[in-house]
Amino acid sequence: MAAARIKGVLSPVVTPFKRDLSPDVGRFIAHCKWLLSQDCGLAVFGTNSEANSMSADERLSLLESIVSAGVPTDRMMPGTGACSINEAAKVSAHATKLGVAGVLMLPPFYYKGVSDEGLFRNFAEIIERVGDARLRVYLYHIPPVSQVPITLGLIERLLKAYPGTVAGLKDSSGDWSNTEAVLKAFSEVFDVFAGSESFLLANMRNGGKGCISATANINPAAIHGLYAHWQDADADQRQATLNDLRFAMQKFPMIPALKHTVARFAGEAAWQTVRPPLAPLTREQGEALDRELDKRGFTMPGWRVQ
Amino acid sequence: MAAARIKGVLSPVVTPFKRDLSPDVGRFIAHCKWLLSQDCGLAVFGTNSEANSMSADERLSLLESIVSAGVPTDRMMPGTGACSINEAAKVSAHATKLGVAGVLMLPPFYYKGVSDEGLFRNFAEIIERVGDARLRVYLYHIPPVSQVPITLGLIERLLKAYPGTVAGLKDSSGDWSNTEAVLKAFSEVFDVFAGSESFLLANMRNGGKGCISATANINPAAIHGLYAHWQDADADQRQATLNDLRFAMQKFPMIPALKHTVARFAGEAAWQTVRPPLAPLTREQGEALDRELDKRGFTMPGWRVQ
Repeated sequence: MAAARIKGVLSPVVTPFKRDLSPDVGRFIAHCKWLLSQDCGLAVFGTNSEANSMSADERLSLLESIVSAGVPTDRMMPGTGACSINEAAKVSAHATKLGVAGVLMLPPFYYKGVSDEGLFRNFAEIIERVGDARLRVYLYHIPPVSQVPITLGLIERLLKAYPGTVAGLKDSSGDWSNTEAVLKAFSEVFDVFAGSESFLLANMRNGGKGCISATANINPAAIHGLYAHWQDADADQRQATLNDLRFAMQKFPMIPALKHTVARFAGEAAWQTVRPPLAPLTREQGEALDRELDKRGFTMPGWRVQ
Repeated sequence: MAAARIKGVLSPVVTPFKRDLSPDVGRFIAHCKWLLSQDCGLAVFGTNSEANSMSADERLSLLESIVSAGVPTDRMMPGTGACSINEAAKVSAHATKLGVAGVLMLPPFYYKGVSDEGLFRNFAEIIERVGDARLRVYLYHIPPVSQVPITLGLIERLLKAYPGTVAGLKDSSGDWSNTEAVLKAFSEVFDVFAGSESFLLANMRNGGKGCISATANINPAAIHGLYAHWQDADADQRQATLNDLRFAMQKFPMIPALKHTVARFAGEAAWQTVRPPLAPLTREQGEALDRELDKRGFTMPGWRVQ
């Protein structure tokens, strides 16, 4: 039997950078360990990790560093998609050899309006090149950013061609009707993760397996609380509380806002650094965000003391 | 004095691939040499070259191969943009050391809705990292594909910070009013290339320096004819003839259509190979394209005999 598949709450782990914009391995490991301590899995190299602002080699090297530091691979779903088949296959093969639970794969996102036929060939070629029975592919549907959707027809074709290997989907469309359609069609063999905790309860009630959400970087325990108690009487109240914090964060550019907040609670200003084309929060934005979080009594317990 | 800047008609050179999807160096060199023989410069690694479907290392290696084969670097403007600053800087520095006339630089295209501040930091960081006085940057404005525009405000800021280094722009917006606005604001110090030969005559009449066009891969001599004779009495007629062929090509997916046509006139079916997520023309599409070209008496003189 294959190992049990990953499920629950995962964070697209924000990537700390040094002043010269190189990844800060020490801070990255510290944040990964804090997230694990909060029952949060590691979707390293996601959109909110600025993964596409790093080279494939930087991602390989960073993944090796956290594995060497003892971060458990069975709680990891690194992003490995790229515009080129070479790079997607290289990073996916490397991560799979290291023993990760699965890889989260963007479609190639440079060309727009490409056909499902072309996308099928892309994923098929990557899977064939990796050529490893341990590979578990989670398709990454995020049309607001990639502009290239993962359609139901494409999922069906890939599931037929690579059953077991094509394992699930992260739906970051923000469109619940799409998540619902995917769940209805495939949830018996295909693990659907909501792309935001705002849809976590709905996803669990319809056969989904969890969520992979930006704000899990700062609010993992509460999100896991809903995941663990979604069948309890207070589930809707938990969802409402999560939504309130999510909506506060969404008033700001998400990635700089997450990094600002980690910087604040870790007591490490260096965490604020983002790679261009992103820009850090302005002073005014930072203060406004702090007020929003203070109003809610928000903290990140334990980050500082690990 | 700095060397004279590149101008005229350039082709985003289509990249031939072998059956295993690796670049076919021999065929690539042959096509570059044919284009040069038709007075066409080489914007290798453009959108129509499937450059973003290749890794940075593949582009470095392919550029070295054509330089070693004696293809003159002063007729080259390789595409070097990437989502990561590392890769954009690495390929730009390498190309500049090899002596290319300039580099055509996409903005980072993963994140959407980024600020001009973030884009300024991106280009500034790349220019600083290259750190070579010979670097000439041509900004690549192609919002239908990249979804990230190069605004007039961004151009102004970059020209002020890096005069001489920031050398021009390729406008593939398809929006003549944008090209016109850039020409009006900056054409005295900034070289504007139309992104299609459809705008070549208008561009020349308003102070532009040429065009960089997909169809220059198959129709370079006629496009150069308009460039060389834009002040002659028959210029409008030349433009109309170019438009007629361009519009025929635009009925088909451009990259597979270009490769189908090179394959046909080179007598080499291998030219049809594209990398996913693109797909080759169907048989029906190929036959329809052949009929369109035959109706116009189109040929690619000399390709086969070099």
